Order: sequence, then C-alpha cells, then structure tokens
Amino acid sequence: MFDLFGKKFSRRKLLTTTGLGVVAASAIGLDPELVAAQTQTSKGGELPPQIKFSPDESPTTEVSSGGPPTALPPAKRLGFAIVGLGRLSLEEIMPAFGMCKLAKPTALVSGDAKKANQVAQQYGINPKNIYNYQNYDNIRNNPDVDVIYIVLPNSMHLEYTVRGAKAGKHILCEKPMAISVAECQQMIDACKKADKKLMIAYRCQYDPYHRAAIRMLRSKELGKVKVIQADNGQNQSNDISQWRLKKALSGGGSLPDVGIYCLNATRYLTGEEPIEISAQTFSTPGDPRFKEVEESVTFQMRFPSGVLALCSTSYGYHQSRRFRIFGSDAWTQLDPAFAYNGLRMTMSRLSPSNNMAEDVTDIKMTEKSQFALEMDHMADCVIHNKQPHTPGEEGLQDQKLMATIYEAAKTGRTIKLPAVSGLDVTRGPAPVTLR
Amino acid sequence: MFDLFGKKFSRRKLLTTTGLGVVAASAIGLDPELVAAQTQTSKGGELPPQIKFSPDESPTTEVSSGGPPTALPPAKRLGFAIVGLGRLSLEEIMPAFGMCKLAKPTALVSGDAKKANQVAQQYGINPKNIYNYQNYDNIRNNPDVDVIYIVLPNSMHLEYTVRGAKAGKHILCEKPMAISVAECQQMIDACKKADKKLMIAYRCQYDPYHRAAIRMLRSKELGKVKVIQADNGQNQSNDISQWRLKKALSGGGSLPDVGIYCLNATRYLTGEEPIEISAQTFSTPGDPRFKEVEESVTFQMRFPSGVLALCSTSYGYHQSRRFRIFGSDAWTQLDPAFAYNGLRMTMSRLSPSNNMAEDVTDIKMTEKSQFALEMDHMADCVIHNKQPHTPGEEGLQDQKLMATIYEAAKTGRTIKLPAVSGLDVTRGPAPVTLR
Amino acid sequence: MFDLFGKKFSRRKLLTTTGLGVVAASAIGLDPELVAAQTQTSKGGELPPQIKFSPDESPTTEVSSGGPPTALPPAKRLGFAIVGLGRLSLEEIMPAFGMCKLAKPTALVSGDAKKANQVAQQYGINPKNIYNYQNYDNIRNNPDVDVIYIVLPNSMHLEYTVRGAKAGKHILCEKPMAISVAECQQMIDACKKADKKLMIAYRCQYDPYHRAAIRMLRSKELGKVKVIQADNGQNQSNDISQWRLKKALSGGGSLPDVGIYCLNATRYLTGEEPIEISAQTFSTPGDPRFKEVEESVTFQMRFPSGVLALCSTSYGYHQSRRFRIFGSDAWTQLDPAFAYNGLRMTMSRLSPSNNMAEDVTDIKMTEKSQFALEMDHMADCVIHNKQPHTPGEEGLQDQKLMATIYEAAKTGRTIKLPAVSGLDVTRGPAPVTLR
Amino acid sequence: MFDLFGKKFSRRKLLTTTGLGVVAASAIGLDPELVAAQTQTSKGGELPPQIKFSPDESPTTEVSSGGPPTALPPAKRLGFAIVGLGRLSLEEIMPAFGMCKLAKPTALVSGDAKKANQVAQQYGINPKNIYNYQNYDNIRNNPDVDVIYIVLPNSMHLEYTVRGAKAGKHILCEKPMAISVAECQQMIDACKKADKKLMIAYRCQYDPYHRAAIRMLRSKELGKVKVIQADNGQNQSNDISQWRLKKALSGGGSLPDVGIYCLNATRYLTGEEPIEISAQTFSTPGDPRFKEVEESVTFQMRFPSGVLALCSTSYGYHQSRRFRIFGSDAWTQLDPAFAYNGLRMTMSRLSPSNNMAEDVTDIKMTEKSQFALEMDHMADCVIHNKQPHTPGEEGLQDQKLMATIYEAAKTGRTIKLPAVSGLDVTRGPAPVTLR
Repeated sequence: MFDLFGKKFSRRKLLTTTGLGVVAASAIGLDPELVAAQTQTSKGGELPPQIKFSPDESPTTEVSSGGPPTALPPAKRLGFAIVGLGRLSLEEIMPAFGMCKLAKPTALVSGDAKKANQVAQQYGINPKNIYNYQNYDNIRNNPDVDVIYIVLPNSMHLEYTVRGAKAGKHILCEKPMAISVAECQQMIDACKKADKKLMIAYRCQYDPYHRAAIRMLRSKELGKVKVIQADNGQNQSNDISQWRLKKALSGGGSLPDVGIYCLNATRYLTGEEPIEISAQTFSTPGDPRFKEVEESVTFQMRFPSGVLALCSTSYGYHQSRRFRIFGSDAWTQLDPAFAYNGLRMTMSRLSPSNNMAEDVTDIKMTEKSQFALEMDHMADCVIHNKQPHTPGEEGLQDQKLMATIYEAAKTGRTIKLPAVSGLDVTRGPAPVTLR
Repeated sequence: MFDLFGKKFSRRKLLTTTGLGVVAASAIGLDPELVAAQTQTSKGGELPPQIKFSPDESPTTEVSSGGPPTALPPAKRLGFAIVGLGRLSLEEIMPAFGMCKLAKPTALVSGDAKKANQVAQQYGINPKNIYNYQNYDNIRNNPDVDVIYIVLPNSMHLEYTVRGAKAGKHILCEKPMAISVAECQQMIDACKKADKKLMIAYRCQYDPYHRAAIRMLRSKELGKVKVIQADNGQNQSNDISQWRLKKALSGGGSLPDVGIYCLNATRYLTGEEPIEISAQTFSTPGDPRFKEVEESVTFQMRFPSGVLALCSTSYGYHQSRRFRIFGSDAWTQLDPAFAYNGLRMTMSRLSPSNNMAEDVTDIKMTEKSQFALEMDHMADCVIHNKQPHTPGEEGLQDQKLMATIYEAAKTGRTIKLPAVSGLDVTRGPAPVTLR
Repeated sequence: MFDLFGKKFSRRKLLTTTGLGVVAASAIGLDPELVAAQTQTSKGGELPPQIKFSPDESPTTEVSSGGPPTALPPAKRLGFAIVGLGRLSLEEIMPAFGMCKLAKPTALVSGDAKKANQVAQQYGINPKNIYNYQNYDNIRNNPDVDVIYIVLPNSMHLEYTVRGAKAGKHILCEKPMAISVAECQQMIDACKKADKKLMIAYRCQYDPYHRAAIRMLRSKELGKVKVIQADNGQNQSNDISQWRLKKALSGGGSLPDVGIYCLNATRYLTGEEPIEISAQTFSTPGDPRFKEVEESVTFQMRFPSGVLALCSTSYGYHQSRRFRIFGSDAWTQLDPAFAYNGLRMTMSRLSPSNNMAEDVTDIKMTEKSQFALEMDHMADCVIHNKQPHTPGEEGLQDQKLMATIYEAAKTGRTIKLPAVSGLDVTRGPAPVTLR
Repeated sequence: MFDLFGKKFSRRKLLTTTGLGVVAASAIGLDPELVAAQTQTSKGGELPPQIKFSPDESPTTEVSSGGPPTALPPAKRLGFAIVGLGRLSLEEIMPAFGMCKLAKPTALVSGDAKKANQVAQQYGINPKNIYNYQNYDNIRNNPDVDVIYIVLPNSMHLEYTVRGAKAGKHILCEKPMAISVAECQQMIDACKKADKKLMIAYRCQYDPYHRAAIRMLRSKELGKVKVIQADNGQNQSNDISQWRLKKALSGGGSLPDVGIYCLNATRYLTGEEPIEISAQTFSTPGDPRFKEVEESVTFQMRFPSGVLALCSTSYGYHQSRRFRIFGSDAWTQLDPAFAYNGLRMTMSRLSPSNNMAEDVTDIKMTEKSQFALEMDHMADCVIHNKQPHTPGEEGLQDQKLMATIYEAAKTGRTIKLPAVSGLDVTRGPAPVTLR
C-alpha cells in the first residue's frame, strides 16, 4: 500500500484486466533466450511488490526516499510509437522512457528516415518499426505498438489521431489537442468508435508538485481560495520559419502553445469550469514573428465558487512559468510551475507559534520526470481499462475556452458561460502514484 | 554629489528658497539656550556636507554603506501636524519621524484628547499644539506647523485638506486621495487657491526598491516590457465596525484601500496612463464584512506602449503584496512589494556566462523607512518650492481610474480611455536621494 | 503584558527604582515651556500603557504588527554621551537613537571639534555638551549624561571606561571589550568600585532573530544540538593606515573585530562555556594589510553538553556573516546573522504532513535596530538597577577565549579549559522586549 | 563540439580504442532480429552526432536545453554487474541506468537469490547473469559484463575488487574505498596487475554543479579563495543492526560514510592536498548507535595555497549537506551539495551596477543523475582506455587522510603532512560532458 496524497494505492490492483489477450512479446529489452521463454506472456500484469529495507536514517526526522521503485519487466511494458521526431520528442520524450515503469518506446513515425533510423538505433528500436506519414496506417499490424503518442504540429493532431485509432491503437496526443473545437470532437468520436483510449498529454497534471497543490486547495489547507494567478510564456525564437508562427499549423500563438498551461491549471486546481471570461491580446507592431499569430494574451475567468483567475501568456517575454493560489489563510505557489524541471513550491502563512512572524516555506520533494509519469499513466489506463485522467474531453474543454478567450479579446466583452456542476467533470480518475 | 539611480543630487541645492521668512523657532528638540541663540534662524536651509571616512572594507568587493547620513538640525526641520491618531499614525508614521532628515512632528489633531496627550508626551510634542476637529482651523496661527499630514478615513480627506489649506499649511494626504473624482478636484483647487503644496502619500514611490524597479524598466535593462502583474491584498479583520467596511467612509473596499497600490505601481513603473480597462469583482455571499464594500477586484489595463497589466486585490486573501515586470530579456519582481518593510527584489535572466543556466538574483539593499522618505520629500518640496513627485494630480488620476474599474466590472465591458502622451504627466520631479 | 519569546514583560515594571533623584532636565527635544514645566521631573519612570486598536486584519491568519510602540517622553529618556565619532558612531549609532524608546544622545566626545560640532548640530545636541579627550573627565558634572558609550579603537577602551566610571557615569563599551584580559578585569573593577554599570555592546544578543534562535535551541525545538557552525568576515580595505590593522590599537586582526561575533554566538546560543579549543590562522604572504595583525582565523570548540563549534573569520574574504545550528531534528540558520540589517532566518525539518518532503522555512519578522535595542537595554538596566545582559564579565570571557584561540593556533594543540557549570553565567537577565 | 565548462569535447573522440575485441552482443534491449544482425559488432564505438534543431526560443535571452541527447545504442553500451543489492543499489543505481548513455546493467551479484531474480526481471537482466558470493568468480566467463560495480559494506570492497579484477573485469567501487590504507593499496595493486581500470564512485565529482564550482574556484571568479566550509550529516536510524554501525564492517562512523564527501570536496575544489590536519569527535554518551563507531567528527585542514578548510559530519544531526567557498571577491555555495538531487547553487558578490547592493544569485541548471554520469564516465574510460577521473589513488588519499583525522582527534594535536606539488595529482582527466 502506498499513499502520498491521500490516495491509497494497492499494487495488487495492477492486474491485467484489459483483455488484451496474448500478444507477441515486444522484444525490446529482451534477451533472445528470454524472448523464447516469454512468448506466451501478455503485456501488463501485476507490478512486483516493493522490496523493503529498514530505513538507514531516522524515519521521524529525515526525509524518506519512498523505497526502491517497482516497475514492470521490459517485456511486459506497453509499447509506444512516437509520431513526430521534433525537439520535444528527442529532447524530452524519448529520454523520459528511461524513467518509465510501465511504458517503452517501440516504434517511430517520421518523415525523415535518416533521423528516424538514428533515433531508433540510439534507443534500441527495431528498424522495422519505423514508419513514415504514408505507411503510418500499417502500424495496425504491429503488435509491438499499444499506444501512439502524437507529437506533431497542432494542425496534424486530428489526422494522426483518427488514422491511429482506425489502426486499432490507443492515442496519447500532445496539447493543444487540435486547432478547433470541431477537430477535438472528431478525435473523441474517432477513438470512441474504435473503442480506443484517448488521452491528452497534460504533463503537469501528473507532476507531484501540481498534485500536491491540488490537494492543498481541495483540502482547504489554504482556507477558502479567492484568486488564482498564473503566467506562462517565453521569448520565442526569431526563426520565422518555425511552424508555431504559422497559424494554419499552430492554430494560434502563445495561447494554445503555452498559455494553455495557465488555463488548464486554473481548471485542475479548482476542479471547476469558468462561467465568465474576458481577455486582451497584444502583438508588437512590426515584429515579424507575429504576422499570423498573437504575441501575448491576458485573460480572466470567474469560477462558480467565486474564484477569480488572472492569467498571462506571451511569446515575447523572458521565461516566466508560475502560478499562485491565494487562499484566505495562506498562499501557495509554484515558480517555476510549468517548466519541465526545477519546480519550486512555496507556501506562506502566519507562523504557527508566533503571530508576529510569517512563515514562507519551500516544500522540497524529489523531482519526477513529468513525461514518464504521463506515459506510465497512459499505460496504466490501457492495462486496467481505465479512463485517462486527462481524456479527450479535457482537451476539448480547453479548446472551447481558448476560442472563447479569443472571442472575448476581440469584442472587449465579458463572455458568460453556462455553469457546470460537479468537480473534475472532464477528467478520469486521479493517477495512481507508482514508486 | 550623490547618485543612486542616475539622478545627480547636489547637497548645495537645498538652500532655503521658499521665502518662508523668519518664523519662530520650532522648539522641539531644542535646548533652551539654543532657542535663544537661534530665534533668528528660519527653518529649512542647506544640508551640511557629508562627513567622509575612508572605507573600512574593500570598495571593489564589499557593499558600501553610503557613508554617514546628513540631516537638518532639529530646529531647522519642517514641522508636521498629524491629523488622525489611528493605527497607521501611531504604528508607522509617528515612529518614522525618528528616521527623518528634514521633518519633525510638532502638532497632533485628534478627537480623543487623552490619546493625543499621551502621544504628544511620548514624542515630545508641546501640548499646546494639540488640536481637535473643532479647533483644527486654529492651526493657522501656529508657526510650529508647516505641513499637515492627513491620516483620516477617506471620506474626511476633502474637508481636512480644504480647511488645512485655508489655514495656510501645505498638505500631505494619505491615499486614496478621496472618495470621488469631484472631491479630488476640490482638494487640488483648494490648495492651488491657497498657494499651498498638495502631495498624496504614495509611500512606495519613495522606496529605494521601487525606484530601482522604475530605473530597470525605463533603462531597458529588462528588454522591452510586455506584461506587468501586481497583487495586493490581505484577510481583513472580522470587526465589522471598522470604517474601512463602511462605504460612506471608505468609498469602497479592497480597491481604494490596497488595490490602489497595484494600480499606482503599473502607472509609475511605466510612466504611462492606461488606454483600456476591464475588471471583475467578487464578494463572498453572506460574509458580513462585505455588505457595503467589495471583497476582491481583479482588473486589467492596456498601456500605450503595449504593456498589458493584470492586477488583483482582496480583503479576503492572505497577505500577498507583489509585482513582477515581464520584459523580453528578463523579469524583475518585488515580493513583497507593498509591505511597509521586508521588501525583496529578484531578477531573472539567462546566466551571462552559461547559456544553459538561469540566474535568479536577489538584489539586496539596505531598507529605508518609506514614511520617513515620503515625509522628507514633502519637506524638501516645501523648502525648495518644488512640485511634489506625487501631487494631487497623481491621486486624482488613480481616483478616475478606480471609478473606471468599478464601471468596467459592472458592465463587463472593456472601457477605452483617451491616450495620454508623455511620461509621468501627473508627477513632479523625481525625489532626490538623501544619505 | 507582552510576550514574544516566552518572557512575560509587564510595562508597569519600568518604575523608577534607581534613586537617580531629581536631575536637571535634559533639554534635548524639549520645548522651552516644557522645560520650565518639567524641571522637577526625574528621568526614567514608567512607560505609558500601549494604546490599543482592534486589528485591521484577521488576527488568526495575518501577521500582527504588535500594536503602537510605547516610549518614554524625550525628557525622561536617559542621556548618552558618545565617545569617538568614527564611522560606526556616525553611520549606525547616532541614527539609531531615532528608534530608541528609553535613550537619547546628549553629549559627544571627540578629538575633532569641527566634526563634533557638525554632529551636535545635526542631532540637536547642546554644543556645551561637546568634550575632547583632555576635558572628558569634566563630564562628571554634566547631569545631561547618564551613560557613556565608548566607540573608540580597542586599545582606548580601558582608559575611557576607567575615566568614565570615575566621572560617575555608567559605561556601555563597544566590543571587543579591550585588548587584553588584564585590561578587561581593570574595567570591571573600576566600574564596580564606582558602583556604576558596565555593559559590552554585543548588539546581536538584543536582536529579535538571535533571541528567537536562542529560544529554539534552548526549547529543544531543534532536538538535541550537535554542531554549531559560524562564519564572520569581510574583505578589509587596502587602506593600511586604518587603526584596525595596527596591533597596538586593535589588539589583533579579524578575530577580535569580527570573529568575536562567532565566538560570542556559540556561547549565547548554548549558554555554555567551551572546555576545549583548537585553532588555525593564516595571513596571505606579502599582503600589506597583514603585517601586524592576522588575516584569517578558524577555531573549534567543544562545549560541556557535547556541542562542537566550528568558526571562521577573515579580513580577506567577501562578506559572509552567518551561523547554523545543527540539531538532531532540524537545523536553523541566520544568513546573514551578524550584519546590521537584512537578517534572514531559515529552518529546515521534515514536512509535518509528508515524510517524503523537506520544509525549508524562512521565518520573517519585522527587523529592529540592533543599536537602538542595545542602548535601550542599557537605559533599562540603569533605570531599574539591573545587571546588563552582557556585562563586563561577558566581554572578559570572550577576551580570555580569544587569548586561548591565539595560543591554540600558535601551538597547534587542543587547549583544555575547566568546565563551567550552569548556563549564562557571564550574563545578566535577558532583555525585556519593548514594543 | 560541445563545451560546458571550458572543456572542448569532440564526439568523434569516442572511437573504440580499447581493443576489447569482438564480444558477444549483450542482448539487453535488443530485438532478436537485431541480435542476429549485430553479433559481429563490438561494444563501445563512436557516439552518433547530435541531431540539430534551430532553437524554439530566443537563444540570446532564454536558457538553452543543449539539444537532444546522444547515446550509444543499447547493444553497444558496456555491461555492468552490480554487486550487492542493498538500498543504494535498488533505490539509486539501478534506476540511474535509465539515464545512462554508455552503460547498461547486465548482471547482478547478491546473496539473496529471490531478490536478485526480482530485480533482474524488473530491469530485463538475463537470469543466467545472476551470481552469488560463492560463484562470483565465474563472472570471468561472461562477455555481457565489462565493469563490476561494487556496492557492498565497506569491509567487503577489498575482496570483491580483487576477485573481480582477477576475473578480468574493470572495477567501479563505492566510497569509502575500503576500511584501511593497506586495503586500498591492495586494491590498486590487484587492478594494476590485472591491467584493469579501478574507479572510486565519487559521484559528486561528475555532477554539473560541483564541476561548475570547481571551475569558479580555479578560474579566480571568486577572487583568491581563503576558506572552504563543508558539512555532511544525517540523523541515522535507530536500527542498531545496520552494518554502518558495526566497525568491523564499516571501518568507522559518520566520517567514512558521509564526512568523506566534505573531505573529498575540499580536495577536488582546490585540487590541492592538505598539509595540516586537526580534528575532534563526539558521540552522545549512552546512545546505542554509537557503541562501535563515532557519531560526529569536525576536522580542519590547511592547504598549500593557504586555504583553510572547516568540515563537520555527523550521524546525529538532521540532514545538512552543504559547502561554501569563501573567496576574496565573492562566495559561492551548494546547499544542498551532497544530496542525490535538489542541488542548489548560490553565489554572492557586490552588485555590478550598484555598490550599495549585494547580489545573491541562484544559478539554476538542469539537474543530471549523478550515478548515470559516474557510470557513463567509467564506461567512457573503458571504451577509450583512459584513466578514470577518480581512480583508486583518489580513494587511497582520502583513506590516508581519514586515518590522519582520527589520529588528530585522538591526540588533540595538529598533524603536519608533506606538501604535494601540482594539482589533481590523484585524479585522471576531467570527465567529458555528454549531451
């Protein structure tokens, strides 16, 4: 049993309940002899129990490591095909498999065969599992692939999700989900029709710090929350050939690319959906980067519980990736919050023992790879036939809200939205924490 | 010559140029023999030259203290009458005179004679210089008083400014200037008619950290500024008898009391005036504190240079008093920014020597008393017949903008304002830095 | 009643119990009419009760200001003569009187009449109260002076203490107390013979952060303390004419000037006296600053409870002024600790609610002027006939230990000292906290 | 070409120059078809060129990621046998292989077959590659194993190094190298005789932050260094059965286990060897943990350049793992420094643009796995036939110095050591930085 944030997690629950049936063993990571021995073995299954040690250090005063990690044997891990070998895939996602417990990379899809071969070789991926955009549909016949992770320009998410689902694979798709609400709906429909899972890669929702922030807010540890403030932006490169600056490929500028983190955070922190939105945009006149897409967006939301959210995003300011939750009794912040690593959580409140002092506390946990956590969650959902925590509906809702933000900015009016009752209505069960 | 933020300051400039004429010596701080010797001496005059030492520590590697402070002798300092002996006066303003160089407390105005007497005794104020709200106008005849500092509930600022100006005294008035635009204009008119100076007590505009932030922004040290984000709020007491919760006395809730710091900061940082405003308000239903005044306000502004500002204020969240300036090359923040003390300035940018590292730098200066700096500035303006850096026009402009914020919140529409050309159009010359 | 660190403090205790008798009024800060009215009034006496307000902000979630300060009226404060008008006097001590509640500056002693006159004028000190080193003894006849504060080169502390005590005044002397153990003893004897108080100006022992650290250690909040580590040093100026580099004037280099803070801190934190000392020194060959005095000293001490202390001091490293207390359950540090301002307290321990996280907490209190606190303590001791918290015996003990440190460094041997039982045996009662 | 800290690194240098000959392919991570295809391929070889992208973000203002990592294909990586499956192996070392670029786990040696099997399965290690302490010598015949990593109680390091070298494998051994100087020499001799490399696992010497600190010190960026202060300790568990508390197994208490990090840091930071040592020890009387081994050690060293070092270590204080380098112009610190992760580097100096301000800068880099860096370095040394940066001689020197520390503590005398000329005399070439 393991319990980090109030969720009890029994390792025994990780039984194969998916009815995937016996598949040919994924060979990656397997000794040839092992392959022979394990061909009858399906993927997934039960995680081994954690190996226990008595603590080296005093458990009452020293930070616990949590004990040795457990993981599925390589042969039992679910195989992921990475579609698109751009910077994010090569710098973050491929290396993150090294920290995965349930997932492994087994196929690549790229328009650049030379690059794909080099990457395959580096990560021990079978060259026969390399696809291009033409023969991508053939992935249907590849038992090494359980999940397709789409890491393409935003405008291509729809096509590769639909083709992937039709090929009988589960889909993990980068954010933003697509470039229009209609596309998002088509993606959901396609996966539903194919009876395949669809998850949007909202990596922060799987990060321990973000989950701790959610818990703090929901448990009233901060008192009643009044305001949330979030910023995410960076000074985008002057290379105007990049797809992010072409509206047809990106669907927009800073908002769908990085501002979406602020929008999403206000929603997962509160669990609520906004009922009012207003917004402003600005692009520096004459800046060649912003001929098609916007530079900066600021937007404001009102949530049913009364929380007011203030967000900013930009392609024109130096990297700033933070949020603060303003509660009646305390505030807590992550700064940075939306970076890949180096997250820092700080909480401020009256000193418990001295009403003339303020405590400003850094809460330091061991950092985890967000991409590994996210991919393992997808694998866990497939293995146990669970709805992903961030399914297509989560991505669709952000797409709707971004459209509303643009509309509000354009009209200068506050746009009201129907109230949604219940919390986390666009989300599946919270991710389990694997050690 | 002294130069902290690019302003050269010659101590020789502090000549008495006010034509105050010979006044009876203010006796506070004077030995009886000295009083006899100095009766011919007017107040104000030249600051003594700074006494010089060779540095104890290496001037190339160790922080300089700036050398010994200079100050006017007590007998030459301008006398201040404090009107209203509430918490701010007794906890912050009266003690701050101990750190003043040009100002001293010489009179008190209060409805509570017993309290006034105790305070007068504690600070060595002549009991004959105690006034009440009825005989306040008699202050006209008191040569010990040069400046009246109004620290009353907001609704009383108008009356006590007008009566004070009519009594021939210069006026320093707490923020917010008043409870309506019309009142602000009346205050300006009254002081103009009386040929007396009017300054609004925007203490942050005199603080070294805020002045450094202004310099950073204006000098392009952060690159081109895109967004400013500011929050100021606190969890207000449940004592519903306090005047701050009565609209007739306060003119509003968190916005005029603490939110004004955010509004003012966006203006003095950029030097610009907003051309668009939108806003939202929220008060927790059933909270007895917010029957008359609002709990929280969030507001957004667009400035002519393209800067977007996002602000929040609240009487319902735990103390949060910060701003961040988001530039294209760096960000800088004060957190806290609007507290009386404990300010912390941080700047973040690419490491100059390593493009794979980020520098996040705390810039640590010696803290100064904001109230002392502000009161000394007022004294300096009187002595040298200068326009205060934060005159009535500065307070009036905030009052206009707060009215616009309320209007925007009410209508849910972005309100456009005429563009104002030039920088710092509502401000007098920057304050000189006294050591 | 007031209680910050567990000491209950009744303001009513501040009755005049010194039998000072009726003295001629100190005129500083007095209106001529007041002088007439108050000539019958003795100094000292009862502090007025604090004026009370109901809190503006929620007392359960917001930091309290502590309410308005109380203070003796200027006429009742004790008069201090400052002996020596060097950098410390002019940059720190004279300005600190502006924050005092019980003390005021009434006389100056200097070899530079012009400088003394300028300072006197700036601070409203009667020119007749200016002395030079020849006529210093005449201070005996000056009722304006109750306490003499000696701020001279170390080698002059003895003479001016003895002459001051013979002149019938209480003595507050800067650290280090003198340049030899024998001198310290003579100073104690002289004051005892004159029945006058002798206090050494260990400003840190009066600082709220240091007092909080003492409380944390003594209350076992950190568990059992094992190690204390302290550093204090700065890169001294290349001006080789400064007295600090002349052994005959200073008695030594970095150790007695700044290293003494580390030594003293280990003693007041634990309340114990060391039983073993070892040490090392180093001076950069050829550095002209270190012809007579040492550059760096590192020293180690063992205390009876088992605590090991490691200290460093230097005139050759960039300013570093910190300590950390290593307890079994937590550590707490001040960094900076020994600076005049900008102190920062941090504590680290296991997160109370999450055994996989570490809390690193900044504990933020409002800063106080250490010199004002120290001078007010001296005044309080005179008014109430109390032993100072840091009497001559405290300075003598540091002098003995510094001699031992030099001996240990010279011999390369650990020197054992007799165990002293009891805590704080060289100290008077803890200072009361005035608001 | 890649250059982080002044070392130019050409990827083309990673040619197979070891003459390892053709070995049977290690099968881990290999598709069965690939195995067939690659059986002729030796391990090691050239790293592929880095795949290049134009930057997404402004290279002049935003932190660079460094681009996609390169790595040897799994089949070409060197195989490591992990000897000892205790907490360190399972919690840190095995998971770190997921971040390696040149190394992979191929064998396990344990006395607990069940545990070994579980670990093998989790990490995809061929069960035939599991050894126990009896049949360990059979590893000689196993071409899957290139390097043996010894993670056993200290007293077993000698035996398993000697047996491993005799079995023809290169040795990576955990710190401390052994429990006596004589043992260390035997280990060096054994590896030399077998013509195998011997590296001691000083993980910090491979960490980017530690390497940056070395560069700062060596490049005079801090001015001339005067003092180094280092602490490393933790509150050890009350489980008195742990081998660390048995002197025969551990060789000592906190000093060889955690204090060694401080000792080693002072040496690699300066590159020098101490010429004087003094020390103190303390163990809480009656604490059952410290019947055989010491609780705390404080020690001091003098280096030829004049640097004085002050260190503390303890099994009895709350985790504290830091160092500070005190230079004449600046200080820099890591706090924590010796933790597995969460390192934080801070530098303090005069503000470049304002001589009245101090800059305290956090220098934030992306964290790397220290164990992965260390193992990759070992692999790199084998592939390219280079001396490890931390060879047996580095471990031997620490062992000698620890013996001297114990001797100094016992005698209470400063022990002088012969001066060693040259820098880094016990180290091989600095590690290359792989991206």
